[in-house]
Amino acid sequence: MSQKPGIEDIILTFERIRAHHPLVHCMTNGVVKNFTANVLLALGAAPAMVEDPAETEDFAPIANALLVNLGTLDQMQMMAMRRAIPAANNAGNPWILDPVAVGPLGTRTKFAAEILPQQPRIIRGNASEILALAGFEASGRGADSGDQAENAIDAAKELARKTEGAVLVTGAVDYATDGDVVVACANGHPLLTRVTGVGCSQGSIAAACAAEAPTPLAAAVTTAVILGIAGELAAERVPRPGSFQIALLDALDELDTTLIRNKAKLS
Amino acid sequence: MSQKPGIEDIILTFERIRAHHPLVHCMTNGVVKNFTANVLLALGAAPAMVEDPAETEDFAPIANALLVNLGTLDQMQMMAMRRAIPAANNAGNPWILDPVAVGPLGTRTKFAAEILPQQPRIIRGNASEILALAGFEASGRGADSGDQAENAIDAAKELARKTEGAVLVTGAVDYATDGDVVVACANGHPLLTRVTGVGCSQGSIAAACAAEAPTPLAAAVTTAVILGIAGELAAERVPRPGSFQIALLDALDELDTTLIRNKAKLS
Amino acid sequence: MSQKPGIEDIILTFERIRAHHPLVHCMTNGVVKNFTANVLLALGAAPAMVEDPAETEDFAPIANALLVNLGTLDQMQMMAMRRAIPAANNAGNPWILDPVAVGPLGTRTKFAAEILPQQPRIIRGNASEILALAGFEASGRGADSGDQAENAIDAAKELARKTEGAVLVTGAVDYATDGDVVVACANGHPLLTRVTGVGCSQGSIAAACAAEAPTPLAAAVTTAVILGIAGELAAERVPRPGSFQIALLDALDELDTTLIRNKAKLS
Repeated sequence: MSQKPGIEDIILTFERIRAHHPLVHCMTNGVVKNFTANVLLALGAAPAMVEDPAETEDFAPIANALLVNLGTLDQMQMMAMRRAIPAANNAGNPWILDPVAVGPLGTRTKFAAEILPQQPRIIRGNASEILALAGFEASGRGADSGDQAENAIDAAKELARKTEGAVLVTGAVDYATDGDVVVACANGHPLLTRVTGVGCSQGSIAAACAAEAPTPLAAAVTTAVILGIAGELAAERVPRPGSFQIALLDALDELDTTLIRNKAKLS
Repeated sequence: MSQKPGIEDIILTFERIRAHHPLVHCMTNGVVKNFTANVLLALGAAPAMVEDPAETEDFAPIANALLVNLGTLDQMQMMAMRRAIPAANNAGNPWILDPVAVGPLGTRTKFAAEILPQQPRIIRGNASEILALAGFEASGRGADSGDQAENAIDAAKELARKTEGAVLVTGAVDYATDGDVVVACANGHPLLTRVTGVGCSQGSIAAACAAEAPTPLAAAVTTAVILGIAGELAAERVPRPGSFQIALLDALDELDTTLIRNKAKLS
Repeated sequence: MSQKPGIEDIILTFERIRAHHPLVHCMTNGVVKNFTANVLLALGAAPAMVEDPAETEDFAPIANALLVNLGTLDQMQMMAMRRAIPAANNAGNPWILDPVAVGPLGTRTKFAAEILPQQPRIIRGNASEILALAGFEASGRGADSGDQAENAIDAAKELARKTEGAVLVTGAVDYATDGDVVVACANGHPLLTRVTGVGCSQGSIAAACAAEAPTPLAAAVTTAVILGIAGELAAERVPRPGSFQIALLDALDELDTTLIRNKAKLS
């Protein structure tokens, strides 16, 4: 049986991000590109949004990790992703899959199944997306989950074993698994669901963490802890979604090892 | 003659949005997708930005309303809209037309004429856009109106009769009509014109309102009232456009039936 | 030898922007469209993001200046830019080139070389981009410069002579040149590098300045001064990147001739 990542693995991953500023090649949806880039910059990582099929193969190895988010997938982006993923794998760079709205929509569901054998280091999704990706019954509607995170843990474990990576199921409590061990992270705040792109930007945090963490599972847990604590810090300061979006970026910048040590709620 | 919507129709529409969280399928321009999604979330509705021609036909019936904004129209988006609009109509879902920059630019002007017979529940535009769409003389320049809202009322009435829906002409005072009755809404603030995407995001508010209002005209009036009062609340707190953008989202969240009752300026 | 632009040229350019609200046709990358539009609105200019190849030729002459930013270049955008640039030139409107990530990525590097003979009024880039565009050795990585601005001055002069325009090399100190005179601008703040799109939005400021300035060099210097001082004002008020992004927009709105006169650091 694999080991549960401890707080020291999380601290180490966070410190490495702050020291190395990993460059994350983001192939993500048009709604959240700006916010995703700002999340990475606030965290101390670096974003690059390269999407032209003629350039992704060259760029994926220059970056330190690749994010593949299916939120506004189209034919051109699929072609670009088909070139970027093997290039990242060949360079030894982790790639992260965020299967947005997989399940109700056919094109992206087929595409997710097509790229899954290329072994994403982390899959990050809500319960409905993880259930659908694993071939279980699901009831998602757009980016919203119709299912509880708890009910997707078995699906997550199966996916993690298949990909030999980690899976992060997000919800009121987040669950990370490598197919063997399951870690629950209870950090977070309801306002995180009132700002568009928070979930998608978490995929980019996962990419930065995957570039620096000792194991895929440690990367997935660090991802949940970072966003969850930053959300709590922001919600202590502002009560409404507009100012919360800004306070969240400030909190990602403010985050340090003491805050992480004192506030992480793992079990 | 049809009835003027009263304040109770507006309150009812607003309360239904808060209770039902209508899912708005937004096909809108790339400049404002993020802000539009945050406006819907702050208001209490839910956004989904699905644009691939392979997916829009499936998704339009899952959502509760469809927004068709022509701001950065291209061939692919036209194809996707041609599939989404009949799918929304067949499902009995309202669709909203925002004819951004129709008039000076040929492609979108032709496309707007093509989809108009499919009866948008609400058309929302500035005076130049409404005049051009109705085939009157207009003088717009990009997203800016070169005409006064007052001068577009006849064009708006003609469009509303043709589509059997409502038309909302935006300006210093907004005018809503179903082709018969005209309602003026004097809520608003000049800072609303200093933030990009405010007008476009109003189209998404119109979609949420159309999903919940008793009549198209009530939906159009509620749209004007919601954005106008939120703009006033935000401008009471901050004097400059950067912080106004954030305060506007907070104000949409803060809005309640008491504020609407006390502040609506209708005639 | 040409004359160094004095503070009066900068004041004049700024006052004209505030008086005329130049309309900037922005063909820019998908990550920064919203922020770029808000930067222009806060400054007192007007944005329009028209990108469909069927419309750019008609729209470029309606606007007062054209921004060509290669940040997320694709085939469709190249086609649209190939039509917009000559249309702007024929109308006597300045166009600005922002050669984002030229150097490491082949497609955009070739495209930049293709359009360069059409004489951008201003080229704005970091040291690595300017070096690569001029055919010198460079070491960029995505949007980040691997080189010091000082080391790109010769490359900038060569480019400026070739295009008969001005070149602005951005860094801790910005350098503007018309191929003859070099002006250094020491305004700015490190937080400007922690918000995505600040550099790209500076290209849109350059377009607004180019529409109103007496010379290309005066436009380039005004561009550096405006963003640099606004960054300083914002950083006096807030210490973190989320709130800095908002404070920067507010500062662009707050800017006036007194602030420019008192704070410009030119040599």
